[in-house]
Amino acid sequence: MGNVLPAAPLATGAGFAYGRDPGWFERAKGAVMRLSNYFLPTLKETPAGADVVSHQLMLRAGMIEQISSGIYNWLPLGARVLRKIEAIVREEQDRAGCQEVLLSLIQPADLWRESGRYEDYGREMLRIQDRHEREMLFGPTNEEQITDVFRHHVRGYRELPKVLYQIQWKFRDEVRPRFGVMRGREFLMKDAYSFDLDKEGAQRTYNRMFVAYLRTFARMGLTAIPMRAETGPIGGDQSHEFIILADTGESVVYCHRDWLEADFLAEDADAEDPAALVERWTRTYAATEDMHDPARADELGDALIERRGIEVGHIFYFGTKYSAPMNARVNAPDGSKVPVEMGSYGIGVSRLVGAIIEASHDDSGIVWPEPVAPFHVGIVNIKTGDETCDSVAEDLYRRLQEAGVEVLYDDRTEERPGAKFADMDLIGLPWQVVVGPKGVQNGVVELKYRRTGEREEMTPETALARLCRPC
Amino acid sequence: MGNVLPAAPLATGAGFAYGRDPGWFERAKGAVMRLSNYFLPTLKETPAGADVVSHQLMLRAGMIEQISSGIYNWLPLGARVLRKIEAIVREEQDRAGCQEVLLSLIQPADLWRESGRYEDYGREMLRIQDRHEREMLFGPTNEEQITDVFRHHVRGYRELPKVLYQIQWKFRDEVRPRFGVMRGREFLMKDAYSFDLDKEGAQRTYNRMFVAYLRTFARMGLTAIPMRAETGPIGGDQSHEFIILADTGESVVYCHRDWLEADFLAEDADAEDPAALVERWTRTYAATEDMHDPARADELGDALIERRGIEVGHIFYFGTKYSAPMNARVNAPDGSKVPVEMGSYGIGVSRLVGAIIEASHDDSGIVWPEPVAPFHVGIVNIKTGDETCDSVAEDLYRRLQEAGVEVLYDDRTEERPGAKFADMDLIGLPWQVVVGPKGVQNGVVELKYRRTGEREEMTPETALARLCRPC
Repeated sequence: MGNVLPAAPLATGAGFAYGRDPGWFERAKGAVMRLSNYFLPTLKETPAGADVVSHQLMLRAGMIEQISSGIYNWLPLGARVLRKIEAIVREEQDRAGCQEVLLSLIQPADLWRESGRYEDYGREMLRIQDRHEREMLFGPTNEEQITDVFRHHVRGYRELPKVLYQIQWKFRDEVRPRFGVMRGREFLMKDAYSFDLDKEGAQRTYNRMFVAYLRTFARMGLTAIPMRAETGPIGGDQSHEFIILADTGESVVYCHRDWLEADFLAEDADAEDPAALVERWTRTYAATEDMHDPARADELGDALIERRGIEVGHIFYFGTKYSAPMNARVNAPDGSKVPVEMGSYGIGVSRLVGAIIEASHDDSGIVWPEPVAPFHVGIVNIKTGDETCDSVAEDLYRRLQEAGVEVLYDDRTEERPGAKFADMDLIGLPWQVVVGPKGVQNGVVELKYRRTGEREEMTPETALARLCRPC
Repeated sequence: MGNVLPAAPLATGAGFAYGRDPGWFERAKGAVMRLSNYFLPTLKETPAGADVVSHQLMLRAGMIEQISSGIYNWLPLGARVLRKIEAIVREEQDRAGCQEVLLSLIQPADLWRESGRYEDYGREMLRIQDRHEREMLFGPTNEEQITDVFRHHVRGYRELPKVLYQIQWKFRDEVRPRFGVMRGREFLMKDAYSFDLDKEGAQRTYNRMFVAYLRTFARMGLTAIPMRAETGPIGGDQSHEFIILADTGESVVYCHRDWLEADFLAEDADAEDPAALVERWTRTYAATEDMHDPARADELGDALIERRGIEVGHIFYFGTKYSAPMNARVNAPDGSKVPVEMGSYGIGVSRLVGAIIEASHDDSGIVWPEPVAPFHVGIVNIKTGDETCDSVAEDLYRRLQEAGVEVLYDDRTEERPGAKFADMDLIGLPWQVVVGPKGVQNGVVELKYRRTGEREEMTPETALARLCRPC
């Protein structure tokens, strides 16, 4: 400073000016990282006390670290995956016409007394007294809180329907937390709440959310099978769980083998009536153990399969369970005041990180579906310090970055090639480019597709063209 | 289903396939909303109990709602602004080489016993017992926790420097919360923590963060003036607050009047040594009341101004205050083990929403700087139901959406034009397009720039061209 330049106004009156450097956003898009700088504390040994493979792999891949029973810190690699899942969930909620809010983590106990759940919820609810000895709690879910928001502001049927959602931390003081982030105490959840005038409207909203859920999970590379479910402590009339199949799943599920090949992304979901989509996607048999119907299942014969499953989403239509006791009413067209019809819709955002790994790993480590991979390409320089290897690898790194591809470059000097390969397989990036001294003498690098292990030698130019194609 | 289509693999082995519909991301980019559907509970009257203008305006604009003293729910308009600020902060932290983590909200008390702060922190810390009667707390800050992460994983000086950051909720049980979200109990904060081998490295990191902060606030349309500050309860050797000027600020500050015109975005900050930038941007006088130097200030003569200010960021270099007692040591090049040199770097993300309003409003309401505006354009249809008005407004809405511009369309039927104008000014979108029956007969709409109130009649085509130019 000293000679302070005159400030140009942020907007000049003609069009936008998002700051003087439009390149910022571009550069931020394709995040890149050198492994020598990255905080990626991988472990060679499987840590004790991790009971399922996703928990083991998340610890070994340096994604998380436990700080207390069922409570985790998310390290950079884990945080990246969490943010990617969060972004997909947000986009699909927005696309379905939901509006994002953020409800406070700490809630007053009195709200829960109104619904009658304060005592019901038991010791799983983390109860807190503040400095003025007010009874508070760390929210395990938010039906009461959102009903309170609604009743303060919405008066008439013309304002309906509405779906509000948030992506926010929750706390449930599980007596025995386990399965790593899949049944932790503190967890990140997307929870949406819907408000409709009547049952027909509520059913339409339920169907719309059902379709949004199929799409959300499909975009993550998952087949999440909708299964009719018990409504449990949320209460209500109708409920579906969305369950992905994994050998290490927490519960037994039964379904038609067609589900193994189901592909919701092949649907033109925008063009079709949600009710028809729901009808089509609930026609094929699928049931949790609780809801299993042996008679109907017998009809499937050989086509019936029994697997283990992990719940990644759960939707509920519960009518006036909260709106009636909490007096959340709207003026109906006939002039009467009626309690609003509600539903709630959860996705376990942090749980999904573990669930995806359960569904997608091999003996060498994680195999990320591309839409949620922390980086898309890993470059392995197997002889850092060798002039040609460094030059080829650095050039690839720079050019992938310029193309907006997310790259992690293993430029470490102190690790042997075997350790680099093992780490790269462990963290499961979809694509690896291996740069070694023999190859570069012949003008080639090796491109490896992590999921199948396929490898192919090619020139760096060809590798770039393959990796950048649709970027 | 029934006839399940064969699933195409997510990746075919050649290039990426982010799902079958690349348009998803495009469509999600330019969020649009009809006000008839939007959950935007604006208030005509200023609510009682709101003591500063930003608090009043946030309540009136339907951005937040208080749920308990100093605890707020963020409604859709507020959540949008919060997410925009968060995104800018994240991009600039990433750009500065910081790595995102997510530390747990609930921490074990024992960590704070190690640093000696468990008792020191007093009643502002929200203390919790879980179901097993373990002593826990809702983190007011995270120095202990990040030091714990570091000591578990980092061994040698080659792994330094590192800066880890998170954007995460905090809780401080203020005895008297006030100023709305600017001094709430639950708040969203960006906190970063740096690790260096020695004082020289720590100073380099401090300078890099200093520059990142100047850029971060400048991108939001703010001049945040760095002022040397007391280190307070965080402790340490060096500290700067970043303060924006606002008549309603919480404290008195003194500075050279050149600061009013300071424009950090005019710097080529990428090209220059951070130390030189820090030197240049601390040369011009600026001081909080605590650190004010009347002798030096007198030299400024007329150029000295006294204003009120709001702290939006605070950076600390505190050396080994936590690493020494918590035994976070690294192997130095000479073979010795030394406690790591640390700093911490905070930005009040939720506080910024209020602070920006304090710095940018008028009698009619909020005036959002464009980079953090919840939508960029508001369309006001002053005669919804009129065929020509509807047709012109709907066409503008559709075409702005196609161009990726964020639009809020006031298509409400039940509100008078005056109420629509008042609401649009209140929520402070940078641009308004007014579509009225007289204008459309003459083939024109009115474009209004909220900040100056300038209005101009033009054809819808010209308005579109003006609004879409750099999109």
